[in-house]
Amino acid sequence: MARIAVVAGDGIGTEVVAQALKVIDVVLPGEVTATEYDLGAARYHRTGEVLPDSVLAELAEHDAILLGAVGDPTVPPGVLERGLLLKLRFAFDQYVNLRPSRLWPGTSSPLAHVKPGEIDFVVVREGTEGLYAGAGGTLHRDTPAEVATEESLNTRHGVERVIRDAFGRAQRRERRKVTLVHKTNVLTHAGSLWSRAFEAVKADFPDVETEYQHVDAAAMYLVTQPQRYDVVVTDNLFGDILTDIAAAVTGGIGLAASGCINPSREFPSMFEPVHGSAPDIAGKGLADPVAAVLSASLLLDHLGHADEARRVSEAVAAELASRTPGAPLRTAEVGDRLAAAVAA
Amino acid sequence: MARIAVVAGDGIGTEVVAQALKVIDVVLPGEVTATEYDLGAARYHRTGEVLPDSVLAELAEHDAILLGAVGDPTVPPGVLERGLLLKLRFAFDQYVNLRPSRLWPGTSSPLAHVKPGEIDFVVVREGTEGLYAGAGGTLHRDTPAEVATEESLNTRHGVERVIRDAFGRAQRRERRKVTLVHKTNVLTHAGSLWSRAFEAVKADFPDVETEYQHVDAAAMYLVTQPQRYDVVVTDNLFGDILTDIAAAVTGGIGLAASGCINPSREFPSMFEPVHGSAPDIAGKGLADPVAAVLSASLLLDHLGHADEARRVSEAVAAELASRTPGAPLRTAEVGDRLAAAVAA
Ligand SMILES: CC(C)[C@H](C(=O)O)[C@@H](O)C(=O)O
Ligand SMILES: CC(C)[C@H](C(=O)O)[C@@H](O)C(=O)O
Repeated sequence: MARIAVVAGDGIGTEVVAQALKVIDVVLPGEVTATEYDLGAARYHRTGEVLPDSVLAELAEHDAILLGAVGDPTVPPGVLERGLLLKLRFAFDQYVNLRPSRLWPGTSSPLAHVKPGEIDFVVVREGTEGLYAGAGGTLHRDTPAEVATEESLNTRHGVERVIRDAFGRAQRRERRKVTLVHKTNVLTHAGSLWSRAFEAVKADFPDVETEYQHVDAAAMYLVTQPQRYDVVVTDNLFGDILTDIAAAVTGGIGLAASGCINPSREFPSMFEPVHGSAPDIAGKGLADPVAAVLSASLLLDHLGHADEARRVSEAVAAELASRTPGAPLRTAEVGDRLAAAVAA
Repeated sequence: MARIAVVAGDGIGTEVVAQALKVIDVVLPGEVTATEYDLGAARYHRTGEVLPDSVLAELAEHDAILLGAVGDPTVPPGVLERGLLLKLRFAFDQYVNLRPSRLWPGTSSPLAHVKPGEIDFVVVREGTEGLYAGAGGTLHRDTPAEVATEESLNTRHGVERVIRDAFGRAQRRERRKVTLVHKTNVLTHAGSLWSRAFEAVKADFPDVETEYQHVDAAAMYLVTQPQRYDVVVTDNLFGDILTDIAAAVTGGIGLAASGCINPSREFPSMFEPVHGSAPDIAGKGLADPVAAVLSASLLLDHLGHADEARRVSEAVAAELASRTPGAPLRTAEVGDRLAAAVAA
């Protein structure tokens, strides 16, 4: 029995997560318990709490977390990001932030030169270090002498394990290629650590092809030649930016799934659509649940249900291929169709 | 008499700079002296020197620097970047790194949904602070305990002056809009400084519209809606990444010009194409000099020759509009055509 903690969150989060659960229920009937946790902007406004320690301890007892979306413009920047999302990533040592990018048949890219099927890569973004460490400070606030700092912290331990994960994934893929993205010509200290760790791990994977790109060049190539990528490994902040470009060139953040993974399974991993709570369309049943359902597929794969994961992603592929561009959709209807396809 | 220091540099740098000088000579006949400085990968290999203090002192005596491209794969990462390019930006306090993006008539974007003329914005990238400060270090190198840091340093002084420059530019443009890009939800210290400085400066420009975007969202919107931007102001590293996306969506880095500007004119400003030295096509006379010539136009504008700057950019517009897509070009012929157009 897999124990899943469900953090539906705010806005469309609740709507799309309901569809993901529907699909999980059908593909693993009777094998999953889902426990809901009320976290996000709504709880913060109601109680002032973001993530009580007792809730964190309860979440730790689960096999995985399925998250919808948290956030609302009424919450000050950083409160839910640092206090909830990043806190979970760090507390559960989710060092592999996995973000697959595919241009699915039936969808279209804003790029004129790429056709469905031609983009298929995965970004392995480091999830527990770098500029996300929260190391920084402010002196002389609100005076002309003010200085504010942010520090990027990179350990050999943290860098090497995520690079090793990326190579392992590449080895299981057809093209077997890993691209390291950093900015070694300017961030010479961290860049050198990343490069040296990359060279060391590479020696253990002689059948994997490698390349290096500066982050600015990679941002450009994601637009001009996204077909060239297979597995991209990069640091926390670069990964944040590059995966949004990747989402843009594959038809939008509405289809992008992600996993915050602790490969050791010592702590639960977390799966969530990349999109936010979208307050503008919340409550109307208009949100596309595909990113949440694809996140559920990553969750199933992580829990060892590779076949079930594939059935879910194939159902999504069929759904997308059958859509009429521009036609309106209803969240629950898409969920029902996907559940039916998975059951068939 | 304007004194221009010319750092042609490596690879195609020398070829494209020659065309830019040709055009400057025609548009300001007899009013410019150009002094060449031998800096870059070639000099580094020959003498081991990157930027001797005596050369730095000589450069300081000029009104502006025109740079082609420096770098070569044979030089270790960081040597020329930190030792030459960034050293000049910092030594001459070039805090406005100006990068205009236009989708010129006659060129085409990889984006299917935008037409020539629809993209026209400028990124004002901070040039003297942030993660480019070079503050970082390494402990326990090459052991499992290694840690490497990079620190982003942001001062109220440095942030406010570049934001003020961006508002000033917006006020002189038609749409009068400034977008602040940062990552305030994660980089809370630096993000707060940037936000508060932005709010303070904004009060002095009531006729300028403003918006804020997280860097990941901005990276996405540069692909999905690049038309929405007018003036974008952001930090050093975000600006590095965003301007390469901007170059990609406006037809490539081959057309992108930039200025590293010290608005006080206390020290010389520096103008350079965004592209690199392109060793693969160097010496063949095949490089497109348009980015270098547009950089010369920014140089002319900075030195107070607004009319001449406009004549140069109009010549470039005509050149691009007259090109047959895919037709080969010869560097010197393009330079001759542009010089003739400017003279006419
Ligand atoms: C919400 C924010 C903290 C988060 C991040 O920066 O990682 C988001 O942008 C993401 O990509 O998951
Ligand atoms: C070469 C490098 C130091 C430089 C930068 O990062 O600023 C370049 O990418 C640029 O954008 O001018």
